Amino acid sequence: MDENQELEERFAQLLWDLRENNIQEFRNSFLEMHIYEQGQFYQALNEEDRQLIYSYLSPKELADMFDVIEEDNEHMKEYLAEMRPSYAAEMLSEMYTDNAVDLLNTLDKKQIAKYLSLMTTDAASEIKELLHYEDETAGAIMTTEFVSIVANQTVRSAMYVLKNEADVAETIYYIYVVNQEGQLVGVISLRDLIVNDDDAMISELMSERVISVHVGDDQEDVAQTFRDYDFLALPVTDYDDHLLGIVTVDDIIDVIDDEAASDYSGLAGVNVEEIDENPVKAAARRLPWLITLLFLGMSTASLISHYEALVNEASILAVFISLITGTAGNAGTQSLAVAVRRLAISDDKNAGFIRLVLAEVLTGLVTGLVTGATIFLIVGIWKHNFILGFVIGMAMLFAITVANLAGSLIPMLMDRLGFDPAVASGPFITTLSDLTSVLIYFNIASLFMEYFM
Amino acid sequence: MDENQELEERFAQLLWDLRENNIQEFRNSFLEMHIYEQGQFYQALNEEDRQLIYSYLSPKELADMFDVIEEDNEHMKEYLAEMRPSYAAEMLSEMYTDNAVDLLNTLDKKQIAKYLSLMTTDAASEIKELLHYEDETAGAIMTTEFVSIVANQTVRSAMYVLKNEADVAETIYYIYVVNQEGQLVGVISLRDLIVNDDDAMISELMSERVISVHVGDDQEDVAQTFRDYDFLALPVTDYDDHLLGIVTVDDIIDVIDDEAASDYSGLAGVNVEEIDENPVKAAARRLPWLITLLFLGMSTASLISHYEALVNEASILAVFISLITGTAGNAGTQSLAVAVRRLAISDDKNAGFIRLVLAEVLTGLVTGLVTGATIFLIVGIWKHNFILGFVIGMAMLFAITVANLAGSLIPMLMDRLGFDPAVASGPFITTLSDLTSVLIYFNIASLFMEYFM
Repeated sequence: MDENQELEERFAQLLWDLRENNIQEFRNSFLEMHIYEQGQFYQALNEEDRQLIYSYLSPKELADMFDVIEEDNEHMKEYLAEMRPSYAAEMLSEMYTDNAVDLLNTLDKKQIAKYLSLMTTDAASEIKELLHYEDETAGAIMTTEFVSIVANQTVRSAMYVLKNEADVAETIYYIYVVNQEGQLVGVISLRDLIVNDDDAMISELMSERVISVHVGDDQEDVAQTFRDYDFLALPVTDYDDHLLGIVTVDDIIDVIDDEAASDYSGLAGVNVEEIDENPVKAAARRLPWLITLLFLGMSTASLISHYEALVNEASILAVFISLITGTAGNAGTQSLAVAVRRLAISDDKNAGFIRLVLAEVLTGLVTGLVTGATIFLIVGIWKHNFILGFVIGMAMLFAITVANLAGSLIPMLMDRLGFDPAVASGPFITTLSDLTSVLIYFNIASLFMEYFM
Repeated sequence: MDENQELEERFAQLLWDLRENNIQEFRNSFLEMHIYEQGQFYQALNEEDRQLIYSYLSPKELADMFDVIEEDNEHMKEYLAEMRPSYAAEMLSEMYTDNAVDLLNTLDKKQIAKYLSLMTTDAASEIKELLHYEDETAGAIMTTEFVSIVANQTVRSAMYVLKNEADVAETIYYIYVVNQEGQLVGVISLRDLIVNDDDAMISELMSERVISVHVGDDQEDVAQTFRDYDFLALPVTDYDDHLLGIVTVDDIIDVIDDEAASDYSGLAGVNVEEIDENPVKAAARRLPWLITLLFLGMSTASLISHYEALVNEASILAVFISLITGTAGNAGTQSLAVAVRRLAISDDKNAGFIRLVLAEVLTGLVTGLVTGATIFLIVGIWKHNFILGFVIGMAMLFAITVANLAGSLIPMLMDRLGFDPAVASGPFITTLSDLTSVLIYFNIASLFMEYFM
């Protein structure tokens, strides 16, 4: 609380200095803050104040802050658009290449070309190199600001290289060893450099078994390697082991967050990143899914309509429709979540496809048996009608089993076909399972009609 | 693929060396592997082979591997139990304190006391210090192996301290500066030490505005600070600014993963970490939720039962029960997910409670209006009955609005009352919304009965 207050006071003072043209005071106190806090301050300003920032701070000074700002694309575009193009271009070239590329990727091609044309050839070519990697691959999240050395030198000379590159490198805590062809042949941590003798040879100290990722690897797989090995950075290579860049752990945390949010969104049938929008915008985002599911729900309604004669004869049947569809939907959601999670963390996704679906169906049978037996007793006693209880219980058993089958089979099939399994959302599974549950329910009921009427 | 094969061959050779008592070959090739791979190999062994490991490797050598093994508690307990107690105790004291504490926390008090009594006093007291921090706080995930120095020295002498501690410290990339009372007064990165002159004073170079977390802070808040600031480690202090330990980014990745899995589990009403169990065990884990919800669903059934006379009169009403409950449930799940996510990432959780719930209700009204109008047209045309269409459309509008209210209000209330909002699972919200939807539906229908019959 005190820290928050301190920060707020600092921000108020900064704003005052900014508007009163106290340039030196503003610069001192702004640049002393952590870049994350600089970003917090900057993002809270209106455009007029931000224009003052652009005149008080150099592109390089702003670049550090822009490296950590996390804002939605619309705002980022706005920020870039309101800077003079040459200022924006210089800022982009001073940012870490991976972050500059992320930012540029939100713009259209014409805009990107404009900024690239305003940069030095070196900066532009570094950015161009990364721009063509496919989204969500190691190539797209890597940076080219790493430290690489050759093996045939001492710790002392390696430390000398390091000191010179410490200013621009995104991490200096791993140093990558390459041969004359630029192929990755070893790695040594700064920790190893420090504890070893200055005259020791890198070739003797380096670890030759380097864990690396391929430039085309999915970012989720890269994140898994980070989790497994607890690294702070990982080298990225091409098909021929050439060192192209590194992925750092701060980017991996973003990847893990994004993937978690996307799995979570999938399960809920809504993009949970949409928060803080106004109700009409939020509704506009949610409606496509709701309306699509409404039409799927209409098939269930027309199926029930088909059995209306049955309901006319025994209106008691209507009483249990929502209980059966609801319970089967709950069971299907459970199966879905387990299947999606299994696909997300398993190394070998094709392992035992049939075995896993079968296990899920068996789980459905067991839960269905217990739930069905429970409802058999409840309905039997409540309505003094054990035949009706039997019908409801049997319908429950089969509806749950089928929901479990759908909940596990559909995401696994989608994964096999190359789609994101999380797209098979919870609402989709429950709405689909409404349909199968109703079909099962009325078919079983019609078999036993004469016995429980 | 090739890498996997290489690793498998390596593992096969290792197993052969292990069983043939080729101690030296085994040790060379085992210790050369990354500790994560050592763990993979170790975890795949049977107890007999593991006993050989315990005789070939020292507790210190095994400790490195145990620092990264991630296994369920049952297996970890088994591993410890099968070692000689003095061997296990020595291994525990060689591990990073935070990891040793995690491992010990899976045991009962008697076991913990046994291992502590077998350790040196130093090791035991370090572990005891961490053992009493509450689960899921900064204190519980921090380690005490950090490097701290006093300000009044040169870069050269600081580097000397660092070299000596590099072997035991969990990270050497941040060096924390403390005063004589052990209070945290500054921080300097290894990067800064390296680029600056050897004779520069630490007091001149260090950053005095240190971002730290409090020992009692929730681990989720600690993770948020890591995300915001992109740090590799954060210092942990007590109420009086004494430096107690550090949290490192690898532990934060585990926290983020755990929190994501727990939110995801909450939404699905199933613990998604349960994967790979047999169907009966899986069913046993899922049934409590399903049966609880079954009873909640029974209230819906008995509510419909209450309106059975209405259904008897107009069996067409039964046709739309599942459509209305289903659609409202889908909308409620969307609201829930957005609310839980908002609570997870917002800094100030109490900000605009009423405003947020109101926004969600407005979103419900808008989606309800559009969905209601759609179903009004469909039903009107399909059944040639626009009064019926109106009833269904109105019911849809109100059912969705109420579901959105419940979906946002319930998790926010739970959070205010100090519960984990993710416990209000998707299945719970949909089952609850079944009840309110049915109530709304039949009340509206009974108002208009005479017009659409």
